[in-house]
Amino acid sequence: MNLIRKILIANRGEIAVRVVRACRDLHIESVAVYTKPDRESLHVRIATEAYEIGEHPMNGYLDGAKIVEIAKQCGADAIHPGYGFLSENYEFAKLVEDAGLIFIGPKADVIRKMGNKNIARYLMRKNGIPVVPGTEAINHENIDTIKRYAKQIGYPVILKASGGGGGRGIREVHKEEDLERLLEDCKREAKAFFNNEEVFMEKLVINPRHIEFQILADNYGNVIHLMERDCSIQRRHQKIIEIAPSPTVSENLRKTMGVTAVAAAKAVGYSNVGTVEFLLDDYNNFYFMEMNTRIQVEHGVTEEITGVDLIVRQIRAASGEILDLEQSDIKANGFAIEARITAEDASKNFLPALGKVVGYYPALGPSVRVDSHLYKDYNVPPFYDSLLAKLIVTGTSYDLAVNKLERALEEFSIEGITTTIPLLLAVVKGREFRRGFFDTSYTDKNMASLVKEMEKYKNKANKFKKEDDLHIVIAEAVRMFESENKR
Amino acid sequence: MNLIRKILIANRGEIAVRVVRACRDLHIESVAVYTKPDRESLHVRIATEAYEIGEHPMNGYLDGAKIVEIAKQCGADAIHPGYGFLSENYEFAKLVEDAGLIFIGPKADVIRKMGNKNIARYLMRKNGIPVVPGTEAINHENIDTIKRYAKQIGYPVILKASGGGGGRGIREVHKEEDLERLLEDCKREAKAFFNNEEVFMEKLVINPRHIEFQILADNYGNVIHLMERDCSIQRRHQKIIEIAPSPTVSENLRKTMGVTAVAAAKAVGYSNVGTVEFLLDDYNNFYFMEMNTRIQVEHGVTEEITGVDLIVRQIRAASGEILDLEQSDIKANGFAIEARITAEDASKNFLPALGKVVGYYPALGPSVRVDSHLYKDYNVPPFYDSLLAKLIVTGTSYDLAVNKLERALEEFSIEGITTTIPLLLAVVKGREFRRGFFDTSYTDKNMASLVKEMEKYKNKANKFKKEDDLHIVIAEAVRMFESENKR
Repeated sequence: MNLIRKILIANRGEIAVRVVRACRDLHIESVAVYTKPDRESLHVRIATEAYEIGEHPMNGYLDGAKIVEIAKQCGADAIHPGYGFLSENYEFAKLVEDAGLIFIGPKADVIRKMGNKNIARYLMRKNGIPVVPGTEAINHENIDTIKRYAKQIGYPVILKASGGGGGRGIREVHKEEDLERLLEDCKREAKAFFNNEEVFMEKLVINPRHIEFQILADNYGNVIHLMERDCSIQRRHQKIIEIAPSPTVSENLRKTMGVTAVAAAKAVGYSNVGTVEFLLDDYNNFYFMEMNTRIQVEHGVTEEITGVDLIVRQIRAASGEILDLEQSDIKANGFAIEARITAEDASKNFLPALGKVVGYYPALGPSVRVDSHLYKDYNVPPFYDSLLAKLIVTGTSYDLAVNKLERALEEFSIEGITTTIPLLLAVVKGREFRRGFFDTSYTDKNMASLVKEMEKYKNKANKFKKEDDLHIVIAEAVRMFESENKR
Repeated sequence: MNLIRKILIANRGEIAVRVVRACRDLHIESVAVYTKPDRESLHVRIATEAYEIGEHPMNGYLDGAKIVEIAKQCGADAIHPGYGFLSENYEFAKLVEDAGLIFIGPKADVIRKMGNKNIARYLMRKNGIPVVPGTEAINHENIDTIKRYAKQIGYPVILKASGGGGGRGIREVHKEEDLERLLEDCKREAKAFFNNEEVFMEKLVINPRHIEFQILADNYGNVIHLMERDCSIQRRHQKIIEIAPSPTVSENLRKTMGVTAVAAAKAVGYSNVGTVEFLLDDYNNFYFMEMNTRIQVEHGVTEEITGVDLIVRQIRAASGEILDLEQSDIKANGFAIEARITAEDASKNFLPALGKVVGYYPALGPSVRVDSHLYKDYNVPPFYDSLLAKLIVTGTSYDLAVNKLERALEEFSIEGITTTIPLLLAVVKGREFRRGFFDTSYTDKNMASLVKEMEKYKNKANKFKKEDDLHIVIAEAVRMFESENKR
């Protein structure tokens, strides 16, 4: 075991804040890095130390060499990559390892294998994990061969970037005449986002649910899962709301999928935390989609139902601790739901919104957790992800958790920036969400009516303005009491 | 069972907010009442309806007849009394019952019996519950008889108001020559605070811990306890920090005390939630102190470790539901600690502080719960209790919970009002608190050094001011990187 005393956090925003908080809980020193536009960021303010990594808004967070150099200079033992940026960059993980520092995540080689979806699919198939019927990389095939593949698989098919993630580099193809055009589109996006134009083709699973299993592993081959998250509420492949456990996965199915997820992780010698993502169809067939070799945005819902702190577990696993949990120790305590509040205008086709947080009242009280880098007077920089806050609620039943999410969304107030709170309220108050009747196409199919519905909730979010703006019924006490009951 | 559809909350501040949130979670309508100085209060803003109950800051909240009348007029089925104000006034409970409404609490007659400490002691002794050696009411005895009693009990003794609570109407007497003067003092305070000058005398238990058991009961005699809270961190008999479960109560002792607490509740035919308070001495002797027949300020720590929502349970029990939990269902999940943040200046002998909340950043993130009626721009009215916020943290071990409380207190920022956050930090960072080495005299005995220690933390609370005020080390990146790593 290597005692970790100081961790550099190679990230920003809410996840950097989350990791700093975990460090503080463990009495470990935390080192923030920040680009110039982020100098007033919350992670900078609450970390033990902070170093600027350049003027450019993005380059700094992607400059692995510089980050490793700062870590060495300031005496950090380990680097936490967060999600996004360098978190799934195996060269960065290698750089950290080679510098004699601890990379808080799996080994570089595992990141490399699972980072290429095409290789990952091959490895999974080889190890008996079900994958969606499809091809290897098709970049070097001619269009006629590709069309033949598509016919064999059967339309509709889906084109995916091998290096993809986060819903980018994906095209659905419903008929042959669109194939060539969409293939070029997909390659272009793959190149732009992941600097890798390799793509492959899969059968498009109809009306699937996105069910992912949280993996926890040590460096010695001990692997368990922390049950599943249902991330089917998505807009254009971007998750909006996540639920743990899934309201529609049965105990039996959970067992089968969980065993498969653990087998997938073991097949590649996985260590640290990670996520195995599956598509689940209407007939309870499930297919390996990809493995994310990092902490995920939605990790909090798993923490709430299992009581396991995943960031603390990442640090402990990375320091070489033997996993002290067995599968039978993991039990769900009710349901947790996360809503991602983003700076986007849903009524303007999700135009990114910017601005200064001129008022901030996060939802508070029992069963509510808010992970966010926001504070009043914070200027949301225009360069980064639109995520403003993760609102997580917990209830003893799915129904109660939904009620609590309604309550918390109605209390949550961010002034000065257009947010998706009204849209989230429209989704959460819908019958489909309440009943658990949704798949990954639900919000896209119903966006027009959701956007219409959301108008109702636009003014509900802020209860903290001046008296005239109050949206409650304030009735004066009936006059008769005044004389009767005067003391 | 009587379905409750609408609840009037006869209270203000954080507990009114807490009850409104529970109502929202259950999709029950909530009715706020407020005095004129409270018209901008948070409970008014988030309730479904709100009615003013007069200009005077206190009278309204104490005017039972008027409150019942409003409840009837607006169609409420039930009244939740919160804590303080009318919550332990059996005449009010009776008024509510007689109006055909549901009083969310025990029966009026039980409130009456347990509200008089002298009667309660008698009932407990009769039912085999250990009580501190002492007298019945001594108001009608002459001073020589009282001196004889004191001698029999043995000095030091403590004088207590029969109608007392909240640390008022209490005097410690260490030698005979002080007895007469302190008795008069005590009676005067009892009269002023509780309109009842009845007092009795008890042996003063030396260095006791304050250990209280949370009771949950239905209307049919089913009673369980939800384990204990350690409320030994007190200033002048006012609780400051509460812990569940106690870090020093053994499993065996918990079992014995728990059985006793349930027996105490059963002895008086208790229903709904309530708390049996014990003093625990160095030799694990414990003595019944009093029973609080209402929800308590510190109920949140019990909720966090047991997963049982006590406000929801109050509503369910009051509606006539049969208790669906057995003693064996109740298990502690880690430790929870609550710190009460009050508007007082500890360096000026706890002078009440007033003002406007010009900046507000409650602690957020995992394991943190904040119950509060504060929001930015709220004017704290000078008429009420000094409680601003209850900060509750949860950890898998006591040690981790203490770390989290440190973290959360350091993040918590209330600008514009002097608060006890620095003092709380001084207590929490002390060795005694960390090790669980404290009794009810700890803070009083060490106040001078705690107040000195707290100076260190006075400027730590606010990380959200302008850049110049930052209290972290911001180091510019070493220049060499600039040229080397430019992309």
